[in-house]
Amino acid sequence: MTRERSWWGWGWADQALDAQACAALADRVRAFLHLDGELAPIPALTDVSLPEPQVRAPQSLDRLCTTAARDRVAHTYGKAYRDVVRALRGDLAAAPDLVAYPRQEADVTAILDWAADADLFVVPYGGGTSVVGGVECRDRSRPNVSLDLRHLAGVLEVDEVSLAARIRAGTLGPAIEDGLRPHGLTLRHFPQSFEFSTLGGWIATRAAGHYATGLTHIDDLVEAVRVVTPVGVAASLRVPTSGAGPSPDRLWLGSEGTLGVITEAWVRVQRRPTFVRRSAVGFAEYADAVEAVRELAQSGLQPANCRLLDAIESMLGAGVTDGSCRLLLGFESADHPVDAAMDRALEICRTRRGIADGSESTSEWRETFLGAPYLRDGLARLGVVVETFETACTWAGFAALHAGVVEAGAATGALVACRLTHLYPDGPAPYFTVYAAGHRGAGVQIWDGVKAAASEAILAHGGTITHHHAVGRDHRPWYDRERPEPFALALRAAKATLDPHGVLNPGVLI
Amino acid sequence: MTRERSWWGWGWADQALDAQACAALADRVRAFLHLDGELAPIPALTDVSLPEPQVRAPQSLDRLCTTAARDRVAHTYGKAYRDVVRALRGDLAAAPDLVAYPRQEADVTAILDWAADADLFVVPYGGGTSVVGGVECRDRSRPNVSLDLRHLAGVLEVDEVSLAARIRAGTLGPAIEDGLRPHGLTLRHFPQSFEFSTLGGWIATRAAGHYATGLTHIDDLVEAVRVVTPVGVAASLRVPTSGAGPSPDRLWLGSEGTLGVITEAWVRVQRRPTFVRRSAVGFAEYADAVEAVRELAQSGLQPANCRLLDAIESMLGAGVTDGSCRLLLGFESADHPVDAAMDRALEICRTRRGIADGSESTSEWRETFLGAPYLRDGLARLGVVVETFETACTWAGFAALHAGVVEAGAATGALVACRLTHLYPDGPAPYFTVYAAGHRGAGVQIWDGVKAAASEAILAHGGTITHHHAVGRDHRPWYDRERPEPFALALRAAKATLDPHGVLNPGVLI
Repeated sequence: MTRERSWWGWGWADQALDAQACAALADRVRAFLHLDGELAPIPALTDVSLPEPQVRAPQSLDRLCTTAARDRVAHTYGKAYRDVVRALRGDLAAAPDLVAYPRQEADVTAILDWAADADLFVVPYGGGTSVVGGVECRDRSRPNVSLDLRHLAGVLEVDEVSLAARIRAGTLGPAIEDGLRPHGLTLRHFPQSFEFSTLGGWIATRAAGHYATGLTHIDDLVEAVRVVTPVGVAASLRVPTSGAGPSPDRLWLGSEGTLGVITEAWVRVQRRPTFVRRSAVGFAEYADAVEAVRELAQSGLQPANCRLLDAIESMLGAGVTDGSCRLLLGFESADHPVDAAMDRALEICRTRRGIADGSESTSEWRETFLGAPYLRDGLARLGVVVETFETACTWAGFAALHAGVVEAGAATGALVACRLTHLYPDGPAPYFTVYAAGHRGAGVQIWDGVKAAASEAILAHGGTITHHHAVGRDHRPWYDRERPEPFALALRAAKATLDPHGVLNPGVLI
Repeated sequence: MTRERSWWGWGWADQALDAQACAALADRVRAFLHLDGELAPIPALTDVSLPEPQVRAPQSLDRLCTTAARDRVAHTYGKAYRDVVRALRGDLAAAPDLVAYPRQEADVTAILDWAADADLFVVPYGGGTSVVGGVECRDRSRPNVSLDLRHLAGVLEVDEVSLAARIRAGTLGPAIEDGLRPHGLTLRHFPQSFEFSTLGGWIATRAAGHYATGLTHIDDLVEAVRVVTPVGVAASLRVPTSGAGPSPDRLWLGSEGTLGVITEAWVRVQRRPTFVRRSAVGFAEYADAVEAVRELAQSGLQPANCRLLDAIESMLGAGVTDGSCRLLLGFESADHPVDAAMDRALEICRTRRGIADGSESTSEWRETFLGAPYLRDGLARLGVVVETFETACTWAGFAALHAGVVEAGAATGALVACRLTHLYPDGPAPYFTVYAAGHRGAGVQIWDGVKAAASEAILAHGGTITHHHAVGRDHRPWYDRERPEPFALALRAAKATLDPHGVLNPGVLI
């Protein structure tokens, strides 16, 4: 009865593109990209060979732990292109030796204690949707344990007066919304991974939801966090804000499982929006569109949606074939009409030659958005190199960064599409999708080349290596260059103190 | 020609209440508070005795340093009630041995190097407006140096496209605005100390401006920070946001001079507002007013001003004598009319029996607000114990916290007034003013008793020990209880790494 998660690719196993859908996709893609060979088959789990587990759970923890192949396989990788390709290849040497499923917070402590005693690595695992190698333990110098928090789930408490809720870290997006809906409330945090990722994962990786402005980062939705570190539990005070020293919560936000295991959090929730206005706006010139969204970002209008698709994105994502680009605009409120805001936004667009196309509904983009990773898996099986990366930069620096990344992509033979997903008064968050012809067996290598070239271009033009995908293991070389050295020293010192046996998620961040 | 700062009290020396104004104040206050004795005289600087300086600058730094009495005296204390009383008493034993005035960033490094070699303490000093003992070095186990950053001042660069500016840390509020005004821009950060405090001080203490919602915390206005630590310079990347690990800037925000010396920052600036609506609203019942401001905070309307004065505040601050309380409401935008927002806000107030009094101008409150510290000094000279403290809590917890603090004040013989200065969807920031009859010579002791009782009440009711006054030395006992222990360990580890000789601001935070 339980719907099955895909062990090799994105999301639900039953939603993966079937052979027929893949063939149709191949026909569409062949028009602009060379396809190399056949559709890669999905290996049978029984054919996959795993290394012998190097560790056994002590009796006291045995009921929480398993070394079953199915569990180990499903916890080997995140969901990046390079993960999918390797899984399809049956390359699962990186599988954890054991998967632990704590049932309560004390179990987390017990597992960390055991890991310190037995000299293990522990990789905290939420929904496993990392696209940066965040849950893949590459250091094999110790046995490693995947710590899956799925049973620490549920909305525990709702404060309807203060609009806040206490939620366990292992709760998936839909379960959070199910728990809040009866109260007329919503967390309103919708990352692309929403269905398959958890509150704890969002906090650990500083996730961004799909809203363009306002309360879209999990950072801003967190009121207090509870974390099990190897040296004790840290629980911050539940207050709207505090000026008492550096924010404790901000140390856990983005800690990516290296400093402790997040077990629950108080988060800010909102009333469900009742006033909604949406519109799509077309721009013949990309530069005009960029100017318009900059003005929107600096206007204080705070659009819920303000997603600018360049011409390639508009073609692939919205079926626009005239080379124009498309802005998806939306306003929402639970309190007051948003017509005046939308009218003013459209006025700003008009001064930049943007034409509202009258379509009130932009819900197709959401389907496209949520379906994209399944499509990506189909393309990967067809041998196409397809992946996304993202950054944030200043408005003044955007044009050069954009050109630099597109150029770097082109130099490695890749087509680069761009959308602006999040907007700030001082700059946008550009989100890039890369398509390149693969050569059977060399997809990961080709992608790594594209990614390195793009990352160099991003850093050279003043962008950050990640706006919301986190650092994991894949972004380390660029993160290390971006991070101020004294801050790196402080972080390493914090790590040595909180995780003295170096148990937690080795190779990530530090 | 240079206007003189008061060495013993708030702000400009020439703006201190003169004898006549103090006498008039005494007549007003006598009605409800016992006054003990005469007006305390302002000691002559020549009468003040200072300990011999315990250190001399090396020749290479001599031109930047002084041991002159006037400089040492002016750098002894911050501007809390307890600082003013002690200064009036001529109690200046805590004076720094030497005051250093670096002229460029390299001087800061040189001074920190010297301090490590010569075994000194260094207290970074911005505008010196701390009200929590932040600049008062109480550890006399080493000679101590006050590091005044006033010469590291100026708006260095303005990015009009991205709406950001690079500003040196020692720049005072008015100089920041003067530098931005020709560009039609503003930082729009107006703490009560605005005239006398600096960008670096705001960042180090996580200052809040006077706006009730939106971009009011300096935390949210900081795009990138440059910090000289004893082990090197940390400069963060200038991007609107980044998901690359825990935020480096958030470690410096609130570090209160313990981890490094902030030398400059890129900050987000805004176009100057052109659309403004203001109104005052009266409420007969405080509970109604609190409900109204909670709804306003949760409405998404984002009022620039939404300051709720209780009956005592309304009487003392706005001359309201009928026992009602008063809400000062304001909306601002540089882009679009704010009438609809104001109308909706007044509608929310009306449902809670709030009556807009038609007064468009609420500018008197600003005069009162900025003049309050001078009045405080006059009252202190009259022997009245008068001071403020503040917190933040959830909406659900506010009524009990408010009652608890008022009760704690009453139990120590103090009258407690409250205003809500900042509003969040999950809770308010209550700001308390305390008035108590002093006994000549015992003012500090009486205040310390009131403060301790109030702080216990705040913590007992789930509030934070400070919303924007910072921790300094005075809040340490409660901060230490509020701060999660693993975070304290991490912070101490960071401190030991970044400041291995323990030079910076000893006794603060860590």
